[in-house]
Amino acid sequence: MIIKVLGSAAGGGFPQWNCNCRNCADVRRGVGGLVPRTQSSLAVSADGLSWMLVDASPDLRQQIAATPELDPQTDGRSRASPITAVVLTSADVDHVAGLLSLRESQPFSIHADPRVLSALAASSIFGVLGGCVRRLPIPRNEVFEPEGCAGLGIEAFAVPGKVALYLEDEGAGPGLGTALGDVIGLKVIDGLSGRFACYVPGCAAVDGGLLRQLAGAAAVLFDGTLYRDDEMIAQGLSQKTGRRMGHISMSGVDGSVAALAGLDAGRRIFTHVNNSNPALREGSPEREWVEAAGWEIAHDGMEVVIR
Amino acid sequence: MIIKVLGSAAGGGFPQWNCNCRNCADVRRGVGGLVPRTQSSLAVSADGLSWMLVDASPDLRQQIAATPELDPQTDGRSRASPITAVVLTSADVDHVAGLLSLRESQPFSIHADPRVLSALAASSIFGVLGGCVRRLPIPRNEVFEPEGCAGLGIEAFAVPGKVALYLEDEGAGPGLGTALGDVIGLKVIDGLSGRFACYVPGCAAVDGGLLRQLAGAAAVLFDGTLYRDDEMIAQGLSQKTGRRMGHISMSGVDGSVAALAGLDAGRRIFTHVNNSNPALREGSPEREWVEAAGWEIAHDGMEVVIR
Repeated sequence: MIIKVLGSAAGGGFPQWNCNCRNCADVRRGVGGLVPRTQSSLAVSADGLSWMLVDASPDLRQQIAATPELDPQTDGRSRASPITAVVLTSADVDHVAGLLSLRESQPFSIHADPRVLSALAASSIFGVLGGCVRRLPIPRNEVFEPEGCAGLGIEAFAVPGKVALYLEDEGAGPGLGTALGDVIGLKVIDGLSGRFACYVPGCAAVDGGLLRQLAGAAAVLFDGTLYRDDEMIAQGLSQKTGRRMGHISMSGVDGSVAALAGLDAGRRIFTHVNNSNPALREGSPEREWVEAAGWEIAHDGMEVVIR
Repeated sequence: MIIKVLGSAAGGGFPQWNCNCRNCADVRRGVGGLVPRTQSSLAVSADGLSWMLVDASPDLRQQIAATPELDPQTDGRSRASPITAVVLTSADVDHVAGLLSLRESQPFSIHADPRVLSALAASSIFGVLGGCVRRLPIPRNEVFEPEGCAGLGIEAFAVPGKVALYLEDEGAGPGLGTALGDVIGLKVIDGLSGRFACYVPGCAAVDGGLLRQLAGAAAVLFDGTLYRDDEMIAQGLSQKTGRRMGHISMSGVDGSVAALAGLDAGRRIFTHVNNSNPALREGSPEREWVEAAGWEIAHDGMEVVIR
């Protein structure tokens, strides 16, 4: 099984169009130790021939163009694509807007939680995909084969999180209307070996249930949005903590590095990294601390091979 | 007034993610005479400081990153952008999806026909822009100043066209539910000189009313989707003619080159060019015919300066 990281940044990407934070300003100027990143998504294949996407980022057209494996097959058909399925982990804009770049009468299947399918149904613009794109509810805690991807298995599990920003209901109390299924994590299973990776690009907190899902993974690709819970406030970028945005931080006693320290797992990789995160910068104390704890920071084009 | 062509391709871009037409296959292989193009939009400024976008293509994040003029101002604000307004010419996905890349609490104004504002309102995902983004109806046939863009004037005029694909109503007869305002053209006016460009990225037919709007323009940027009305059928890409898609063709007795031959105008530039169009290829007979008729083919990054 090959996992290609198409995009490794959080919403907005890196640099973000309107952001003057130190990271964004420096990457625009070409300062060393920083590389641009598009918004988070994966391409996964068991055979290198048919591919599943995990999440469809707004940068998807650019990501496909940068990934020769996703070129249309040259088998004589005028329109073709090796992408047969898209699995969604939430209804966040950075995870679904790329569906709009998969139009042009191309059959494929969207697999998503019923909550996320409802969100798509409430935006008529996704109707552009037409009848050739099937929208299939993901069963929770049950392995299924994504459409057209023989040799791959997916198992979804609910993750502590927050409903997508544009669906927040301020009147619904502290949960803002969040319900089970708004944020899911995925076991992505290589059918041949039974080995699996876990993909959790959004996670508000690590609890015992989540730890049980991640245990034994050959690779964990995990929410690396923020380094510190208050870093966006400290940098003058936002009034929101990571907690308010539904994202656990890397550092701190209740951060993800600490929470996953005892986990039985192979590679540990942070992805969905926000432009404000100091660990984006190679050689920074924060990057060194994360790496010393056994974690990698994903970059666009990164490959994780599991056999 | 500076007009920068951010993107010059029709919906899907060039190459298109799932397309094996000769142009797409050749540009992927790096064949000479063909350059990639992102989906159509403009950036326009009177002073080089504040910018208006015309249409927001799905490739907008990539387009902004490729255009240093659109970098955030480095005036001490942590979040900033010189983009103060976005004027929309239709609700087509290739003209509105990029609004989703302008999130992150950045105030600006959307100017669009009430028909297009209704289409945005029917997709809850655009709620991500929040209350800091104003949605303002465009008056038709009346000059207005786009928000924050002193020195620029806009005048909108209805153009023969077709409602956006995802809003087509098959039961509504041959017009598919199209109403006045679904497709507009724009006069983009340099306030200082009074000279203007016309931007018409989608147009089904040239009639007398349209010719009167275009007369006297220093530059006309016009719908260059197809070269021949049946070229997508001939290439096995689609069952639809240009006419069915709401796009006039370049060639033919009722094509745009013939229809605009007698027009009193300065530069004539085709934009919104589809991947199937043989005039994309430098040195092709179709390109030579178009150029011999006095037309240019837009490319990403093209500048049109009007003083």
